[in-house]
Amino acid sequence: MKNPSLKIVLIGAGNVATQLGLAFNKSGYKILQVYSQTSQSARVLALKLRANPIVNLNHLLPTADLYIISVKDDALEHLCKKIRLKNKLIVHTSGSLPINVLRKTSLNYGVLYPLQTLSKNKAINFSSVPLCVEGNTKATESKLKAIAKTLSKQVYSIHSDKRKVLHLAAVFASNFTNHMYALSYKLLKKNAIPFEILLPLIHETADKIKYGNPSQMQTGPAVRNDKLVMKMHLTLLCDEKRMKKLYEAISKSILKNTD
Amino acid sequence: MKNPSLKIVLIGAGNVATQLGLAFNKSGYKILQVYSQTSQSARVLALKLRANPIVNLNHLLPTADLYIISVKDDALEHLCKKIRLKNKLIVHTSGSLPINVLRKTSLNYGVLYPLQTLSKNKAINFSSVPLCVEGNTKATESKLKAIAKTLSKQVYSIHSDKRKVLHLAAVFASNFTNHMYALSYKLLKKNAIPFEILLPLIHETADKIKYGNPSQMQTGPAVRNDKLVMKMHLTLLCDEKRMKKLYEAISKSILKNTD
Repeated sequence: MKNPSLKIVLIGAGNVATQLGLAFNKSGYKILQVYSQTSQSARVLALKLRANPIVNLNHLLPTADLYIISVKDDALEHLCKKIRLKNKLIVHTSGSLPINVLRKTSLNYGVLYPLQTLSKNKAINFSSVPLCVEGNTKATESKLKAIAKTLSKQVYSIHSDKRKVLHLAAVFASNFTNHMYALSYKLLKKNAIPFEILLPLIHETADKIKYGNPSQMQTGPAVRNDKLVMKMHLTLLCDEKRMKKLYEAISKSILKNTD
Repeated sequence: MKNPSLKIVLIGAGNVATQLGLAFNKSGYKILQVYSQTSQSARVLALKLRANPIVNLNHLLPTADLYIISVKDDALEHLCKKIRLKNKLIVHTSGSLPINVLRKTSLNYGVLYPLQTLSKNKAINFSSVPLCVEGNTKATESKLKAIAKTLSKQVYSIHSDKRKVLHLAAVFASNFTNHMYALSYKLLKKNAIPFEILLPLIHETADKIKYGNPSQMQTGPAVRNDKLVMKMHLTLLCDEKRMKKLYEAISKSILKNTD
């Protein structure tokens, strides 16, 4: 269902805009413009996508088929006030914001939310990125779904209320998890132990959850209520107040998690 | 360097004892006995390993070459008081306890710590499990290293002080991470969203850290200081007090992590 004749404008030049832009490009779509309020960011991404960089929304071309807004949620509502596209298809990529933040921008609007952690400089195989779509009408949703399917094998219709729960779950499963990796990295670095030694453990932990409820896979001192070890760990963290507090709070939560 | 003539006694029948026992068995070693204070646990593991179950430490055979104590850290010191093996090689598998908790059990003692999350019923390829060894003498450490190398390609000499830091880092990187998965599972289940949709995200998060310091890979509302989203997430968690507290504490830690 490729439709390389579709022309796209990207509004935003961050992690999500970059990876979505590259994925659309790879699938044969033409990216006309990249908008960013920072001219350097607009230029860098536009160069990658053979598009024109713009820093002023008044310069948005009216001739594209799909406008993708991919900016920080905090900035989205303000930005929407400046965009009026009649009946052009416009989407945002936010996990949290409802579809109707776009209601004044066009008659046809929707959401294209990639449920993946995306970084500007880390290539990703988009065909296995779950894409959650929503449209303001059935026709818009069908159109978006068809476009999404040209990028990924995993396309889901998920509407605003469920999408925000999904995004919250993703924050726990990915952002918070990554922070746990970051804290362990810091601890090992301070003690001159190479982080690589933890990689098999990290991968096995991520792999074993495919077998069922992760709480049934829980290992470690907290779930065993091994007080001796936990006390020793807290002593080791005496110079790291924030880590110590997190250690206590997460251990408590593990111990009380009875599901 | 296989040495299948070595005979082993397992003291403990939990997750680590089970997977170590299976790995030794697979490498051709003979497991003579499995001790557990719970006769059912001793029997279940002994059956898997074609060994004899025992529930009384007075029945320990003196004829084995290697005794492996794999019990909860809280129980280890008490248990050591009941074990006297002259010069037989004895090890514990704890990440946290120092080598010298074994000093009265034998003249030759050490540590064999598998840095991996192990569950009784989840098979593991032991050849890629990092094994951290330590011996009370150079000769003992060499002997243990040689044995460890028959199980795994990744064998490290890590002494007690560093091992406990490594174990603490592993608690963050694995146990706490798994709890983040568990919380997201709970949240999705409550909202009738299949957990499978998160798996690509979880695997990508675990995969991308091989490229460097995880804090440089951090994504999500906290690192962007996206207050609108965080506020909305806290509202969604109003019925989940513990999760809400964790959300706040971890987000704060992400925001302040400047490494």
